[in-house]
Amino acid sequence: MTLEEKLAQLFGIWVGASADGGEVAPHQNDMIDDVDIEELLPEGLGQLTRPFGTAPVDPALGALSLQRTQERIVSSNRFGIPAVAHEECLAGFATWGATAYPVPLSWGASFDPDLVREMAGRIGADMRSVGVHQGLAPVLDVVRDARWGRVEETIGEDPYLVGTIATAYIQGLERAGIVATLKHFVGYSASKAGRNLAPVSVGPRELADVLLPPFEMAIRESGVRSVMNAYTDIDGVPTAADASLLTGLLRDVWGFDGTVVADYFSVGFLAALHGVAAEGDWGGAAATAITAGIDVELPTVRGYGAPLAQAVRDGRLDEAIVDRALRRVLLQKLDLGLLDADWSPMPAVLAGGADASVDTVRGTVDLDSAENRELAAKLAERAIVLLRNDGILPLAAPRRIAVVGPTADDPYAVLGCYSFPAHVGVQHPETPIGIGLPTLLESLRAEFPEADLVYVRGTTIDGGETAEIPAAVEAARDADVVILALGDRAGLFGRGTSGEGCDAESLALPGAQQQLLDAVVASGTPSVVTLLAGRPYALGSAPESADAILEAFFLGEEGTQAIAGALSGRVNPAGRLPVSVPATAGAQPSSYLAAPLARKSGVSNIDPTPAYWFGHGLSYSEFAWSDLGTSSRLFSETVEVRVKVANTSDRDGSEVVQLYLHDPVASVVRPVQRLISFARVDLAAGEDATVTFRVPAELTSFTGVDGRRIVEPGAVVFGVARSAGDIVFSHPVELTGETRVVDHTRPLHAEVSISRA
Amino acid sequence: MTLEEKLAQLFGIWVGASADGGEVAPHQNDMIDDVDIEELLPEGLGQLTRPFGTAPVDPALGALSLQRTQERIVSSNRFGIPAVAHEECLAGFATWGATAYPVPLSWGASFDPDLVREMAGRIGADMRSVGVHQGLAPVLDVVRDARWGRVEETIGEDPYLVGTIATAYIQGLERAGIVATLKHFVGYSASKAGRNLAPVSVGPRELADVLLPPFEMAIRESGVRSVMNAYTDIDGVPTAADASLLTGLLRDVWGFDGTVVADYFSVGFLAALHGVAAEGDWGGAAATAITAGIDVELPTVRGYGAPLAQAVRDGRLDEAIVDRALRRVLLQKLDLGLLDADWSPMPAVLAGGADASVDTVRGTVDLDSAENRELAAKLAERAIVLLRNDGILPLAAPRRIAVVGPTADDPYAVLGCYSFPAHVGVQHPETPIGIGLPTLLESLRAEFPEADLVYVRGTTIDGGETAEIPAAVEAARDADVVILALGDRAGLFGRGTSGEGCDAESLALPGAQQQLLDAVVASGTPSVVTLLAGRPYALGSAPESADAILEAFFLGEEGTQAIAGALSGRVNPAGRLPVSVPATAGAQPSSYLAAPLARKSGVSNIDPTPAYWFGHGLSYSEFAWSDLGTSSRLFSETVEVRVKVANTSDRDGSEVVQLYLHDPVASVVRPVQRLISFARVDLAAGEDATVTFRVPAELTSFTGVDGRRIVEPGAVVFGVARSAGDIVFSHPVELTGETRVVDHTRPLHAEVSISRA
Repeated sequence: MTLEEKLAQLFGIWVGASADGGEVAPHQNDMIDDVDIEELLPEGLGQLTRPFGTAPVDPALGALSLQRTQERIVSSNRFGIPAVAHEECLAGFATWGATAYPVPLSWGASFDPDLVREMAGRIGADMRSVGVHQGLAPVLDVVRDARWGRVEETIGEDPYLVGTIATAYIQGLERAGIVATLKHFVGYSASKAGRNLAPVSVGPRELADVLLPPFEMAIRESGVRSVMNAYTDIDGVPTAADASLLTGLLRDVWGFDGTVVADYFSVGFLAALHGVAAEGDWGGAAATAITAGIDVELPTVRGYGAPLAQAVRDGRLDEAIVDRALRRVLLQKLDLGLLDADWSPMPAVLAGGADASVDTVRGTVDLDSAENRELAAKLAERAIVLLRNDGILPLAAPRRIAVVGPTADDPYAVLGCYSFPAHVGVQHPETPIGIGLPTLLESLRAEFPEADLVYVRGTTIDGGETAEIPAAVEAARDADVVILALGDRAGLFGRGTSGEGCDAESLALPGAQQQLLDAVVASGTPSVVTLLAGRPYALGSAPESADAILEAFFLGEEGTQAIAGALSGRVNPAGRLPVSVPATAGAQPSSYLAAPLARKSGVSNIDPTPAYWFGHGLSYSEFAWSDLGTSSRLFSETVEVRVKVANTSDRDGSEVVQLYLHDPVASVVRPVQRLISFARVDLAAGEDATVTFRVPAELTSFTGVDGRRIVEPGAVVFGVARSAGDIVFSHPVELTGETRVVDHTRPLHAEVSISRA
Repeated sequence: MTLEEKLAQLFGIWVGASADGGEVAPHQNDMIDDVDIEELLPEGLGQLTRPFGTAPVDPALGALSLQRTQERIVSSNRFGIPAVAHEECLAGFATWGATAYPVPLSWGASFDPDLVREMAGRIGADMRSVGVHQGLAPVLDVVRDARWGRVEETIGEDPYLVGTIATAYIQGLERAGIVATLKHFVGYSASKAGRNLAPVSVGPRELADVLLPPFEMAIRESGVRSVMNAYTDIDGVPTAADASLLTGLLRDVWGFDGTVVADYFSVGFLAALHGVAAEGDWGGAAATAITAGIDVELPTVRGYGAPLAQAVRDGRLDEAIVDRALRRVLLQKLDLGLLDADWSPMPAVLAGGADASVDTVRGTVDLDSAENRELAAKLAERAIVLLRNDGILPLAAPRRIAVVGPTADDPYAVLGCYSFPAHVGVQHPETPIGIGLPTLLESLRAEFPEADLVYVRGTTIDGGETAEIPAAVEAARDADVVILALGDRAGLFGRGTSGEGCDAESLALPGAQQQLLDAVVASGTPSVVTLLAGRPYALGSAPESADAILEAFFLGEEGTQAIAGALSGRVNPAGRLPVSVPATAGAQPSSYLAAPLARKSGVSNIDPTPAYWFGHGLSYSEFAWSDLGTSSRLFSETVEVRVKVANTSDRDGSEVVQLYLHDPVASVVRPVQRLISFARVDLAAGEDATVTFRVPAELTSFTGVDGRRIVEPGAVVFGVARSAGDIVFSHPVELTGETRVVDHTRPLHAEVSISRA
């Protein structure tokens, strides 16, 4: 291959599917240089960027467009190599008409990796069916500051939970034949003050013990085939320029052999934003990125085309580095079957191939099947977190219900910023949403057909209006119960209160929502607060004054029905908080995963104790926990921790048994509690089960003073817990033997078994 | 010496001077174990903790008490070794009746190291005169999050400013014979979320390039003889247990040969709070601390007594480590003259020695001399920062003045939490304050004798009351001008809104002060906002709506007169912000010292641009700046940057010429602007001066990818500036040569010369 042919495999072109079934067309915006696709194609093309997710197009026509473009790509280059088509799939396939599943923060809340795996399998199958090869998900960033706009895209604030759920998602996607992409490797969530793209101040130990573990778990256990860098710098080194991470750790230590793709524009950002290459020196930026280990430039070509060719010719870059990236890209295309002799550009859903006509295929693809919707509903129901319930829930046949709040009558209130309608659809108001999105108000009317519902918005999400608050209070006064619907509007870069570029100054509810909440609760009518939100908000006095609080992190298209079902009792809540709910709106960053001094009261005006701890969630069932102790008080290799959980109520329900590690004395400062395993246990009314955690000593390991991961002998305490703040049984155990260094082949999980009586 | 005799030199006992002129007595509180001084003294005693600063005692009686106790210490131990007596001196000698100087944040605001040196000389002389040997100041922590309660104790958010001013302070103190103590080594100011004692997340580059430079500068240039550890951990390693910092860097690299003393209780905290030793294992905690490099346990003995002796006897600690600490302590006592044959316990101020009677000495010591007060006034005047002035200031003979706000009629409103009256005095309401502390209201009455002053408090500092706001608005409406006096109450651990343990959730003004401000400004009467505060607060719309804003960081006992003088025009403001004033109350941590992505607008809902930049401050004079360029466009060793500044007005005044470095392309991410030099230039009306900065290439150095400090060739831009956000002249210069590694003997300053026409 010529140098230009090699490089052509190393970048993508942003395209949009044609609404009239023609080919996909280059997409342009103010960040994307104009590209002449005719001029490029004779050299080949590595990737097609977002053929479905760029504009609202009938997915069958999108598939047809993509097929025709692939045919042209294949016929234009000497080797007949097709492009990899990639799409976003953060909370479902990001295309018009596809199922909008709950966002990752709700996957975390479900504590249900099996269900997440199943969902990802459906997402992957749908993507594969229309010709997509790679999905830019999941997000493995561990929440460090809930002000960050992308918290909704994460799985939570605990590395074990994030890694476990993400691994399940990847398994589902990969088994469907889609290349999953870990993002954002690594550090993005620790951006200073939670501000998008801001620098990351962490040391090597925090990086190793908090931010990296989900990535390691996914790479070792999920079969993931791609990784995307973080935009940010860590302690002054942009990740996109960091060979020690992208090559040293990822490949040399962890053995990853897939592709590393650039987060959109991040190659150019090395020059334009980080200043590690000169402004306009795209060849220099590209040489730095590819040398560090970024194989593919996305979303479009800026550095990896002519500027990088020139850098090779000028001797600024060894062509062997280009070959290294090329080999990875071509091996992945081989792996995907794209280089097979019988490869066809015709996606599974289309019959007739290039001869298919627009009229033949239009409307023939259903990406929101009944099966999908059922799965979306199940996950939404399992992700609802009941934070507080003084007994008011489930609602006992209320006659008059007041519904108040800005998220009550908004179909978008269940969507995250990467769900297609919120991501792209809102910019095309002329196009129908493409999926059913009943508002909470509609779902409540359906759930409580006998009740009189009165709705008053009260205020907008972030406008700060207070004029309607008196009417809301009036409505509450006239009702048997008032349901407050508060929360976020997901959007991009300033269009939302949650989502990419939509960071918060504090964790106060946006706009005048806290004022509305306080006024309505003060009405004296029993109140239920529902939060349709992308991040945890401090709720002022509501944890004491509201009668019930229900947290619903963007539950997707079946979300409002799930919430209505939880209020009526049709659904028994069992989600658990994947992020703590703070007691105060300021005082970020914070995390449950904190050293003693980060959790201590009395040394500051600021008490860091949250309103609701990570892992907290209530149920309509009642569960009795019986201590079954540990298999031994001493161990050097493995110890078992056992608990019996009985559903003593007359309602079927789920309990989430959490296992935490407390290490009272260590050679470095350790978090007070750290989740090391969990089991979501579905228990029918009256049923009981014994949960056994078989814990390898390696789960106690941490990064020691000298930077190596060690298992250190001494006392450890296993906490069998309902949440990080509610340890039900504490088991002090002595870890014996000598301090030993462990490597990246150590066990990452406890074996969990659930045995039913 | 026996092991016990050795160890006895390595700890202090907290004592309080007797009010009746007896000996100092052991002080007890809930953190201090009971000690039997009679039992201890035969072995000797290393230190006496806070003989003056523990209770309000006439300083002459304190001196007498101290003398008598020293006599007993000397006569009780075999070697006749006296104790080192240490005191706090953060903003003046922390004892009853001593001058309360401006707090360090105002030293920073003065940009006047010479005046700070002079002040420290006075403080040192006063301490020395009553028998004190060591002062626990200055604080070299670089502000990273203005929510931190101890911001008032720092010099600012720039390492060069902090290092330069601190070095001057230390020179003053040390030349007076007092051992200065650098604190807190290192990282404390970066505590997560600005919460007291919370862990520090920084990487080694941020540590080396931001937090450590002031310490290095002080150790190399000031003659400082003691260092105190930070309470915090950095990336999991408590500083009190970190040999790489306390011994490796401090002694082996920087060559420090004085003593390292423990911040109060921090040896025990290794067990009780950090968990790197077992709870109750004081010997283990002590062995860890002394091995890391802490020579002296303060404020009292917990680990360095019997537990450490036992640890040596058990073989857990090599006695050579004890000897190492002992040698440092005894060498320092030798250096202080305490081991001289003719050493006398009688302090300079007392005549009659042990025979002096209480009645003879009472009232004979004046620690608040006219000379002190004049110096305190001068520094206060030079530290006032005029943030905004639409022309209203200086006030032109106002007839009716409304004075509004909670700091207007509060004598403590000029004091930081380590000033004796705020630190200790407030707990002894039966005792007079001991120094003159006119309120702002009193000083305004004195400054504007012809005017009618009406005072309405409006609200308390942090109570949130709003009932008096209408009366305040009314008073404003009836006046020609309204002077708002807002800000903080300094205190300790929850007693204040600023000070140790008094951290803020956000940078909103405490309580209902912003409401008061908004309401009074909306009255339409011309308004002047004065801030008597310990940290920078976001001021809402005041930067657009108030007519003038004056920032006064706890100016000390002469502070209200200085403010009144600035309002009348008697004083011409010339202070500059040592910390940025943010535009938004949330969004911390932040710093002007920020990478491009930490300063960029448009990528987040949160615009990080401050309301007023680091370095900003206005004057009543007018200055014309003329560019005199650089000595060369290329340099490898040294280059000169010159500017001419002329006072074109008819008022004498000061201009602060600041020199910033911008490094557009580097191998790691660099801050957009970084202060590398400054000159405060006093210019009489009509006078001009040429300022020349002779900049060595080493000032461009930074910590490179491999962790070594390097000078890297390429383009750099010198900014001659009024503030970090107001670069008047930009000089691009090419640094030539090869990348070179620099060490800890590199130059730390530009040579600055000011030549007057």
